[in-house]
Amino acid sequence: MEEETYVDPSPIWDTLNFDLLMKVANNTLFSPFFCMLVPTFFIFQGLGFTHYTVVYSSIYLVLVCTFWAVKWLSYLQYNKTSFLYAPVPLEWSDQIVVVTGGASGVGELLANTLAVKSVTVVVLDVKPIQSQNYNVNYYKCDVSKWEEVEAVSKKIIEEIGQPTILINNAGVVQGKLLLDLSPEDVQQTFNVNTLAHFWTLKAFLPGMLEKKKGHIVTVSSMLGAHGIAQMTDYCASKAALISLHRSLRSELDKRYNCPKIRTTLVLPGQIHTPMFSTVTPSNQFFFPTLHPIEVVKPIIQALDNTLGETIYLPFYANFAPWLTVLPHWVADIGTWFSGADLSMKDFVKVSGRREDEGPVPERSEPTPVVATNGHAKLE
Amino acid sequence: MEEETYVDPSPIWDTLNFDLLMKVANNTLFSPFFCMLVPTFFIFQGLGFTHYTVVYSSIYLVLVCTFWAVKWLSYLQYNKTSFLYAPVPLEWSDQIVVVTGGASGVGELLANTLAVKSVTVVVLDVKPIQSQNYNVNYYKCDVSKWEEVEAVSKKIIEEIGQPTILINNAGVVQGKLLLDLSPEDVQQTFNVNTLAHFWTLKAFLPGMLEKKKGHIVTVSSMLGAHGIAQMTDYCASKAALISLHRSLRSELDKRYNCPKIRTTLVLPGQIHTPMFSTVTPSNQFFFPTLHPIEVVKPIIQALDNTLGETIYLPFYANFAPWLTVLPHWVADIGTWFSGADLSMKDFVKVSGRREDEGPVPERSEPTPVVATNGHAKLE
Repeated sequence: MEEETYVDPSPIWDTLNFDLLMKVANNTLFSPFFCMLVPTFFIFQGLGFTHYTVVYSSIYLVLVCTFWAVKWLSYLQYNKTSFLYAPVPLEWSDQIVVVTGGASGVGELLANTLAVKSVTVVVLDVKPIQSQNYNVNYYKCDVSKWEEVEAVSKKIIEEIGQPTILINNAGVVQGKLLLDLSPEDVQQTFNVNTLAHFWTLKAFLPGMLEKKKGHIVTVSSMLGAHGIAQMTDYCASKAALISLHRSLRSELDKRYNCPKIRTTLVLPGQIHTPMFSTVTPSNQFFFPTLHPIEVVKPIIQALDNTLGETIYLPFYANFAPWLTVLPHWVADIGTWFSGADLSMKDFVKVSGRREDEGPVPERSEPTPVVATNGHAKLE
Repeated sequence: MEEETYVDPSPIWDTLNFDLLMKVANNTLFSPFFCMLVPTFFIFQGLGFTHYTVVYSSIYLVLVCTFWAVKWLSYLQYNKTSFLYAPVPLEWSDQIVVVTGGASGVGELLANTLAVKSVTVVVLDVKPIQSQNYNVNYYKCDVSKWEEVEAVSKKIIEEIGQPTILINNAGVVQGKLLLDLSPEDVQQTFNVNTLAHFWTLKAFLPGMLEKKKGHIVTVSSMLGAHGIAQMTDYCASKAALISLHRSLRSELDKRYNCPKIRTTLVLPGQIHTPMFSTVTPSNQFFFPTLHPIEVVKPIIQALDNTLGETIYLPFYANFAPWLTVLPHWVADIGTWFSGADLSMKDFVKVSGRREDEGPVPERSEPTPVVATNGHAKLE
């Protein structure tokens, strides 16, 4: 589990999935520029303005433009900014980035990637990060405990400086049915996945409020927006984060008067990390398993933009919030189609095991999950 | 705070609000029966089937019917039942109902109302319930602690029997800005509002699984679907409940094979209870403060139907889940219009105070909140 190797699959069908198709469609079928070419082309071909080809393609163009305009205005409104001013580019070398759970999975890749960009990175984790980069500073800290976060945060502020970016990423999965969850399991899930965010915010937000700027990244999960079997505690703890992200935005805007402290919410689907290595993968065309780099890229992009947003990954995660407002059978069909309710059946907890749980059971070792349609293998 | 009196306001304008208008509209403008009368009337008046009045009113009728049909089918699908079979009516006298937080507010009214229907009611609360009804059985229990729930549940099953209905209603509000929340505050919010549900489910679900029937009512809050300032912890803990309700449904259907164990989610807005007595009320026309009876009635209705559902109260709560999928400015306008981000400014915690918090501060006493447009006064 120490080394992760990304095997680039050669046949094109291996990397073909719904997300790739959507990427292509966004640059063609749904691109205002591309759609503008169609009526323009036909007009220049000599067709009149009232010809039905020109009229229908123009109506389509207006619809596409409206969609993107609404999306863009919503993004600006969320950040209480205007399209007249371009956001100030982020001075990466001035940033001090705190990454919780930064010793493995997405957190580790994020820490290492930022460190290469010569950003000062502070990793909080219970186990040390394997990194040669001198920009990475490791502090041993169980973020689920306020006392530890309080003590370590004081040390960080003294030794390194006031963090400007906070990436709350630490998480733990129990993967048990409700009645199989021990009280310690439930406590651990909420302490690590939810309460830790309150503790790190209490520790690092005051410094951001003073400068009236900063960026808080909340790594929740697509499951926080829906809820599946054998993940009752996990889904609930991640749903709490989505809510926290929203009410934090309200407080920053209306009560602390700091709209420039940005907030970004990340809602990823299944990621290829040790934590999820024993989850049965779904259909890789519609529900591709994410490689950590696919999650790290848009986070860094959001930080670079100095604007907050909600990152849904992969594309199907965009539909998750709709399940609440659409009739129940839509959610039922979606969950059945994804096989989500059965995906945890062979789950074995490998990350974040407590002392009372003992070592990882033997049987988990000979069954590494290999995604069938492309993407990384975990070796 | 012991006695609550419901002052029935006399002038009609006092009780006129958006919910009343919607109730009227549901029986007229949006009623399939009523809408059917319009084209029928005009046809019998001698207008042809192709007359525009008949055509347009028929199209409107189809739209109204479709809306209710989709809603009805979604309700049946949620309960994995068919419209061919009417649900078996609930034998109230056989039921043992557990109500957490049943010593005040909604829980108290619910316990007393059910007891009058000669249902065996078990109240779990830290303080005793004031009730003369011998159907009400009080067990002192801090539901936020697994050990207490475990011990008390064994006593209940031995002394009274296996509960058939579980109403998870206990809740606590801190009403502080994020940085003002003490670690004890955050812990208490999640322990009482969220973890307690896991504990009571662990204690009482096995009995329901054995009989393959029962009803679990999750009292969350409309704020669980949105998130406002000064309620970061409360909103997050209630959002977790919405998620728990969903994944519990999946587990009951797909993993425990007990679709007949019903699950009902309650998402109320502000309620006139001691807990919320110091909240600034919003515009009473659009955002009326609920009287506990308005929450208790639909819960008993759902239990009586022996079918699970999601109860949004008052009417505006129906829009809360849409805020996630609509552009950000819709949520911003809605929150601004409701004044929700400022409503907690004068909040004083009167319910669920811990020992380390001491008694309720004096200044809260002389400012009882009186809803301006109708509804109850708290005296």
